[in-house]
Amino acid sequence: MSLVAEALRETVCRANLDLVARGLVMETFGNVSGIDRAAGLFVIKASGVPYDGMTAEHMVPVSLETGLPLETRFRPSSDTPTHLELYRAFPGCGGIAHTHSAFATAFAQARTPIACMGTTHADYFRGDVPVTRAMTRSEVETDYERNTGLVIVETFRALKVSADDISAVLVANHGPFAWGPDAATAVERAAVVEYLARMECTQRIVAPGAPKPADYLITKHFSRKHGKDAYYGQK
Amino acid sequence: MSLVAEALRETVCRANLDLVARGLVMETFGNVSGIDRAAGLFVIKASGVPYDGMTAEHMVPVSLETGLPLETRFRPSSDTPTHLELYRAFPGCGGIAHTHSAFATAFAQARTPIACMGTTHADYFRGDVPVTRAMTRSEVETDYERNTGLVIVETFRALKVSADDISAVLVANHGPFAWGPDAATAVERAAVVEYLARMECTQRIVAPGAPKPADYLITKHFSRKHGKDAYYGQK
Amino acid sequence: MSLVAEALRETVCRANLDLVARGLVMETFGNVSGIDRAAGLFVIKASGVPYDGMTAEHMVPVSLETGLPLETRFRPSSDTPTHLELYRAFPGCGGIAHTHSAFATAFAQARTPIACMGTTHADYFRGDVPVTRAMTRSEVETDYERNTGLVIVETFRALKVSADDISAVLVANHGPFAWGPDAATAVERAAVVEYLARMECTQRIVAPGAPKPADYLITKHFSRKHGKDAYYGQK
Amino acid sequence: MSLVAEALRETVCRANLDLVARGLVMETFGNVSGIDRAAGLFVIKASGVPYDGMTAEHMVPVSLETGLPLETRFRPSSDTPTHLELYRAFPGCGGIAHTHSAFATAFAQARTPIACMGTTHADYFRGDVPVTRAMTRSEVETDYERNTGLVIVETFRALKVSADDISAVLVANHGPFAWGPDAATAVERAAVVEYLARMECTQRIVAPGAPKPADYLITKHFSRKHGKDAYYGQK
Repeated sequence: MSLVAEALRETVCRANLDLVARGLVMETFGNVSGIDRAAGLFVIKASGVPYDGMTAEHMVPVSLETGLPLETRFRPSSDTPTHLELYRAFPGCGGIAHTHSAFATAFAQARTPIACMGTTHADYFRGDVPVTRAMTRSEVETDYERNTGLVIVETFRALKVSADDISAVLVANHGPFAWGPDAATAVERAAVVEYLARMECTQRIVAPGAPKPADYLITKHFSRKHGKDAYYGQK
Repeated sequence: MSLVAEALRETVCRANLDLVARGLVMETFGNVSGIDRAAGLFVIKASGVPYDGMTAEHMVPVSLETGLPLETRFRPSSDTPTHLELYRAFPGCGGIAHTHSAFATAFAQARTPIACMGTTHADYFRGDVPVTRAMTRSEVETDYERNTGLVIVETFRALKVSADDISAVLVANHGPFAWGPDAATAVERAAVVEYLARMECTQRIVAPGAPKPADYLITKHFSRKHGKDAYYGQK
Repeated sequence: MSLVAEALRETVCRANLDLVARGLVMETFGNVSGIDRAAGLFVIKASGVPYDGMTAEHMVPVSLETGLPLETRFRPSSDTPTHLELYRAFPGCGGIAHTHSAFATAFAQARTPIACMGTTHADYFRGDVPVTRAMTRSEVETDYERNTGLVIVETFRALKVSADDISAVLVANHGPFAWGPDAATAVERAAVVEYLARMECTQRIVAPGAPKPADYLITKHFSRKHGKDAYYGQK
Repeated sequence: MSLVAEALRETVCRANLDLVARGLVMETFGNVSGIDRAAGLFVIKASGVPYDGMTAEHMVPVSLETGLPLETRFRPSSDTPTHLELYRAFPGCGGIAHTHSAFATAFAQARTPIACMGTTHADYFRGDVPVTRAMTRSEVETDYERNTGLVIVETFRALKVSADDISAVLVANHGPFAWGPDAATAVERAAVVEYLARMECTQRIVAPGAPKPADYLITKHFSRKHGKDAYYGQK
């Protein structure tokens, strides 16, 4: 492998371990990948490997063209074909994080979007985090993981939502995926998705039918942190 | 005791301490056992011993035939007769974990099964985690702990559910038991039961009547991890 | 002070710090006391002292007869007259713990008893943990803390409940008090009260009208751990 | 900068880091400031700086008169104009803490005040923690952060509530602000706001329409800790 891919392997390994540090992982669930589009490959966690003792060696390079692993030491995550379809469909996507974090997964099981109820949400996502439709029998029985990716892409196309504006999704009865310019940002956004789901759960106990904030408030906050007029943070 | 039983004692002690590490224990509640069917014995935590300072010495060997302890240093857990009945009825059961973990116990107190609402659940259990019926006065007043085991077995028989497909149960108004090929796996499953109950609690706040996933999704996920066609993890 | 009282001071200090270790404390809220009936005094945490850096010096001895502090270095907890009334009314009470732990305090604010819904509860308390009535204006404006104690005692007398069988109470719109043979046990029971409230909160989300367990199950579990026929733990 | 301002910088830095220690922070959200009215300046966290590695250098002095930073090394928090308006309107305010802590932010998203349901609340705040009205399009699009401050001040004036008696607010669809005589106390109160929101969430599950405590109980507890007749703590 090239030196670039070795560095990516380190980055992706750190991002996978960050899932644990942020409390987003149960057992061996969850996986993070990062892409090197120039090299035509992405790197993803090996399948079912414990996080304890995980090193860059356990990150498997996969061809963006064929979807096949470029090494045979470890099998890549069983969710690899899902990541592949997201990288193919979303050109701005540089890293992907998948978790079974408790609150976000509960929303996925409830088949309920995480509504954009405030500025914490709007600082990261310009609208509700959507839920995919239930998959058909044939989608599940054949090429299940690839179809999971295709159903995510279909969801964004149907809602006419940009994957840059809303960089996360809930797969129905499964769990959240989040993405961003790189693997570390994808993990940060996966953590935010969990936090937003946790807050919306409380909000629904307190005031189930609470009104959403106005669109101009959402736009204001998203634009404070994203795009050419951003003024949050240091120059 | 034989060398085999000594090794089992170490294994079971570590599994008991793992209950604490996983946050499944309050005070001295909870116990784990593991069986050596060839030797005709199982090993279980001593009754009411603090987890702090617990060693393999506090693990008590019990005869599978008589149900009596094979040593007199410590009394075995008061729940020993429950474990005994599960080992007798479920031949695939190699280890058992009992906890009073907060969410799963709350479901037991609600006498409500933990519904199979998603893939996290289906990766471990092929359907709802059932609840036993309430016990009668005579079942409670005489041979209470043994009857607890018998009521668990009755529940699986009545539902025509395999204890290998669904390796956990909620005892009504008491708490969860989980089992597996060995003590460590039993503890892992007890942790998953707690996590699933926690997620279902949130899901019920968000969407109380949410539909269950299709059977083919549950079968797909269970089969990814169990049985001859499993493809999750490393070979 | 006598040597006995010095030892009590150490014990009570450790019990106060145990409140923190168990996560039952917010800011300087909470206090624990322990009594030496032969010496006619009890020892209680000083008022508003931070837990960080607390030592046995900060435990104030108080006369059981006069209710006045026997030292002037530190003012005793503002809740001292409440403890005094409980010691006077409940002869089996050797230590008292008061917290503002989150779930139990929420039940106190809901003026809702913690119902005995399962064996975790019955292992400690032989029935619901009751709530006091709201206090009158004059009870609050004059001798507030003493009247808090008197209203607790009134609650147990009105319900004809033994303070040995149910060794905890929720003061309406205030928070829980728990007691036992010594300060350490009082703290353990305060932790259990919090755990039970947490579980009942979940149970009410899952099944708001769930039936209580039969009295014979409650009696069975309470008797496994208390009284002459107890068989839980080591001899 | 003067020596006084350097000391303030240290104080405010510690208070910002205390946000993290108390679990009130997600990512780079949250900010704390402290004022030196004699020097005509306040000090606030730099915008979007990670808490990990934060030092007093990252605290930016701002003129109370002009609202402009007195140094150019770091941009001050984007919320600086909000803090400025609070310092101008509330003369007793010596420090301000803003968080996106999960429960309090959920109440802000629910546009629901944190009701004064018990003595934990009344020990800190003499009545409900109010919610601001939704902001208009022009308030959001022009001078958003300054208008956030003005809407907070308007809320207190409309309710005829003293900012000394109730030293916290929820900004609708945004999150909580708390203040006090200094930055450290502001952070303590922000932690209490989170705790109160968490308890009220539970209380609403258990008894949604539970009655509030009598005014005389609230007055009693607030007065135990505040004002000339306070008798909580050491002299």
